[in-house]
Amino acid sequence: MKNEKSIRVVGIGPGTSRHLTPAAAEAIASSDVVVGYVSYVEMVSDLIIGKEIVSTGMTGEVERCRAAARFAAEGRRVALISSGDAGIYGMAGLLFELLENDDSAIEIEVVSGVTAASSAAAVLGAPLMNDFATLSLSDLMTPAEIIRDRVSAVSAADLVCALYNPASRRRRTLLPFALERFAENRGPDLVCGMVKNASRVSQEVWMGRISDFPVERADMSTVVIIGNSHTEIIDGRMVTKRGYKL
Amino acid sequence: MKNEKSIRVVGIGPGTSRHLTPAAAEAIASSDVVVGYVSYVEMVSDLIIGKEIVSTGMTGEVERCRAAARFAAEGRRVALISSGDAGIYGMAGLLFELLENDDSAIEIEVVSGVTAASSAAAVLGAPLMNDFATLSLSDLMTPAEIIRDRVSAVSAADLVCALYNPASRRRRTLLPFALERFAENRGPDLVCGMVKNASRVSQEVWMGRISDFPVERADMSTVVIIGNSHTEIIDGRMVTKRGYKL
Repeated sequence: MKNEKSIRVVGIGPGTSRHLTPAAAEAIASSDVVVGYVSYVEMVSDLIIGKEIVSTGMTGEVERCRAAARFAAEGRRVALISSGDAGIYGMAGLLFELLENDDSAIEIEVVSGVTAASSAAAVLGAPLMNDFATLSLSDLMTPAEIIRDRVSAVSAADLVCALYNPASRRRRTLLPFALERFAENRGPDLVCGMVKNASRVSQEVWMGRISDFPVERADMSTVVIIGNSHTEIIDGRMVTKRGYKL
Repeated sequence: MKNEKSIRVVGIGPGTSRHLTPAAAEAIASSDVVVGYVSYVEMVSDLIIGKEIVSTGMTGEVERCRAAARFAAEGRRVALISSGDAGIYGMAGLLFELLENDDSAIEIEVVSGVTAASSAAAVLGAPLMNDFATLSLSDLMTPAEIIRDRVSAVSAADLVCALYNPASRRRRTLLPFALERFAENRGPDLVCGMVKNASRVSQEVWMGRISDFPVERADMSTVVIIGNSHTEIIDGRMVTKRGYKL
């Protein structure tokens, strides 16, 4: 970047170096300061030796963006990291919002990454082969009422659906609501899948009929993918058929 | 992979080595045969020197999958490449469909990549920061009627929308339909953007109000992103606000 004051918002993918793009690795390696949620910082630990690290807990997003802006204003090269793609439920948008009325002329570059829906889909098979929606079930930023309306609209339109943040320890009701709504619209045999910690050693996979969904296993590290009416399990993999004539 | 007969379906990202994951590069480099659409093969030309290459034109998807299966059945290591993420409108699903009733025990591994919506979003700013839908406007595999219904459902639900394959030389009517429908539901000042050849040297970017959308510039190398009611242009970047209290 040409600007002296800049922040790169970097998507690090699912959390292993095999899925971190060279552009993301370079953005982190060439920075002076790395800011991120503590677990994400650990995922890139081999790239950040000798750098200043600012890591905060799960709900410290605003704090992290402010720290990134403060360092950038001092002329230091900052990498603000997100898991998956920084532009999908990541840190990029918040940083733009925070700097909207800022006059320090900090340039923001977004470095894309492999988003969690892609990582989970690859593990399951090929469930995202036709039109799909990506919904977050976290009601921290979006009212539960709006989330329920979107689930209803998506399930009625026969879109495949990737659910991010399907459940937390505290928040357990929206996932059962979503599963019920999809089963209502598409039937109890609807194929769906779930991947926890995609691509990491701790990866867990489930796929099957929506009526058998193990809802208690879903947490914040899980992506749930709900099939459409053409999704099947083929040789143990979840595949949404597109209708090729073979 | 442990199986002797295997195909890796590899997403190469937007088309530059900077956005190709190490897992994807390794899958291509360790293969004997690389199968892909001719333009995608050119994008990874530095990884495939000395390998057998099978490349076909735009509509040769079935032919490419059959070629990949034939080579794998002979015990050769095959990389079947797609641009973006192989699991999102890519080759992964078709390959599973093709091998559904095949008894040659070919193992399929999907190697995820950065999908076109992520690449386009990073160039525009942060438009995918809230729930979104990904729709393809190509009516080759999905009837235009169904596409129109999905556009209507998504626009009514205030989801951000990424449109893949928005128009081809032959197919020019679904994009104007979609723009009209979104403008109807969200107003003529709705913010949207368009990126052609994201991350490549030939990259072209447009963002503005939906009523000014330069529909004639959209083609098969373009991704269009339609904002939701909270999408704004902040300092020349397209950002979907999530409602943080700053």
